[in-house]
Amino acid sequence: MARSSLPVRVVLLIFLISSPACSFVAPKLYHVRSAMNLRASVDASPYRDLHVMVNGMPGPMATAAAQACLRKGLSLAPVGLTGPDVEACTIEVKDEDTGRSASVRLISSVDMDEAEASLLGLRAGAGEENVVAIDYTHPSAVNGNARWYVEQRLPFVMGTTGGDREELGRDVGEGNFAVIAPNMGKQIVAMQAALEDLANKFPAAFAGYKLDVTESHQKTKADTSGTARAVIGSLSALSAVPFDVDSETKMLRDDASSLDFGVSKDALNGHAFHTYRLTSPDGSVRFELQHNVEGRRVYAEGTADAVKFLYKKIREGKAGKVYSMINVLEEGALE
Amino acid sequence: MARSSLPVRVVLLIFLISSPACSFVAPKLYHVRSAMNLRASVDASPYRDLHVMVNGMPGPMATAAAQACLRKGLSLAPVGLTGPDVEACTIEVKDEDTGRSASVRLISSVDMDEAEASLLGLRAGAGEENVVAIDYTHPSAVNGNARWYVEQRLPFVMGTTGGDREELGRDVGEGNFAVIAPNMGKQIVAMQAALEDLANKFPAAFAGYKLDVTESHQKTKADTSGTARAVIGSLSALSAVPFDVDSETKMLRDDASSLDFGVSKDALNGHAFHTYRLTSPDGSVRFELQHNVEGRRVYAEGTADAVKFLYKKIREGKAGKVYSMINVLEEGALE
Repeated sequence: MARSSLPVRVVLLIFLISSPACSFVAPKLYHVRSAMNLRASVDASPYRDLHVMVNGMPGPMATAAAQACLRKGLSLAPVGLTGPDVEACTIEVKDEDTGRSASVRLISSVDMDEAEASLLGLRAGAGEENVVAIDYTHPSAVNGNARWYVEQRLPFVMGTTGGDREELGRDVGEGNFAVIAPNMGKQIVAMQAALEDLANKFPAAFAGYKLDVTESHQKTKADTSGTARAVIGSLSALSAVPFDVDSETKMLRDDASSLDFGVSKDALNGHAFHTYRLTSPDGSVRFELQHNVEGRRVYAEGTADAVKFLYKKIREGKAGKVYSMINVLEEGALE
Repeated sequence: MARSSLPVRVVLLIFLISSPACSFVAPKLYHVRSAMNLRASVDASPYRDLHVMVNGMPGPMATAAAQACLRKGLSLAPVGLTGPDVEACTIEVKDEDTGRSASVRLISSVDMDEAEASLLGLRAGAGEENVVAIDYTHPSAVNGNARWYVEQRLPFVMGTTGGDREELGRDVGEGNFAVIAPNMGKQIVAMQAALEDLANKFPAAFAGYKLDVTESHQKTKADTSGTARAVIGSLSALSAVPFDVDSETKMLRDDASSLDFGVSKDALNGHAFHTYRLTSPDGSVRFELQHNVEGRRVYAEGTADAVKFLYKKIREGKAGKVYSMINVLEEGALE
């Protein structure tokens, strides 16, 4: 467990020497810098030997997850997979809150031999059980990537949605360590589960109450979110009144309405605001629930917590298992 | 079960003949009228033989409970207990929504012999198992009344708060049918239970989130409500941040602030509005919960549902048991 991380750095340096120029313009937060992770502050942490391989950068969700890992004291693996259309290159991921940063060499998914070789090198240095992958790639890559993780016996957190989810379930059977969830926002999953439990435990507790739903998302989102559908399902079970999501939900998709609804100007292009209201038939009682998310941080931090959870289970020596965010939530506070 | 209600009416007429003038000014909703209940519409109901003895009128909460019973198709017993300082009299209770009304003779609690005699008459006509009491009296009457219900083997719903609750628990042991709850507002109890479950299942799920609480009540309420304290307990367990209810809750107790907070002008003297907000450390995620109650209707209707629940249990032939509002909620929709 207390192995030095020196061999990893050596592997990384070899990568850097052979790295061609990046084929994309690095966004503000990635700067090609030193290959050395800032690790001093995490040496006392239970995660000091863990290396998180973030796959899907420079995509915004994978990058946000990598930043959240740095913020929460985790170290990034010096390599990660990227899409087949991205040329191999090295980026620097930086978390602005803590100032922690890390260089990551992106390996195109067309070069899986290189990916395997680098994983081998990484594990040789870090220890077999000390690498966990995060996947925020593309729906079309979900199933292939999952099979690769299983083949490599690489524990992973699958945050990418889409793909063939049934096949995913079959491919990643018992014996493998994984967290698979369509929504990595811990707090949102918790709220959703609480409402589902409430509807199951106390059916028709709000019998006759009228449900009103207003939600705002970025203009590019055509439909209502899966979270809204799930929450509406529970609330309409509580009110015992059918609610047609498509015709009855008030969807805001223009900037002026979203701003009025409380969305920050900066978040007009990426937000998920929801207000549900249950009103008693005579109007004397009103319950209102809002969950308002700007940006990707809540999902990114939930992903980092899922990594911590998975690593904890691995170190407890248990048999591999596929977990959900509910399991992560049940674990409670993660150091 | 299908006994005619005629004997009850006969008992009631005897009461009316011997009734002195009411010793209080009848509020708008009670009018001394005919002694005949409007019962035609409930003859097909499973509650057609049930007579609800509402104790504590003309107090506003007992009166609201009686109106809720009428609204929900239940018949009132023609007698009810009132305080020792109220002279015996007959009032009419009317539910404005349905137009249903009932005359109820109030028997002062100093005349418990008369109360017993009238209960005996009522049961002789209606059937032993067909009378259930509701208690919205006074904290000082809670324990004495409960002992009387037990002595009379009269199933009851205790909505009165205060008194010695431990003694109450001891006095009303197994074998007696009762619903005892400090809050009869079904929907509020459900929400409170859901948050408590959430905090138990997913401790620290909102770790680091900041909690803000604003509540508004009528000017005469000095402290924060028990519901707010319970909800804050759950939310601060979820955020894993201590919250001092007394110093950190923003309490609104003046009309202007309450109106700004959304309270109707008519409800300034009787409302319970609460807004809880959980905000992530970086401000990108916000959850908000509101429960806003005007008047007494939510508690009154929960009480009527508790009566229905209790009567259902009695008719199922089960052994007597003391239930809570959680049990009522678990039962789901009540016809």
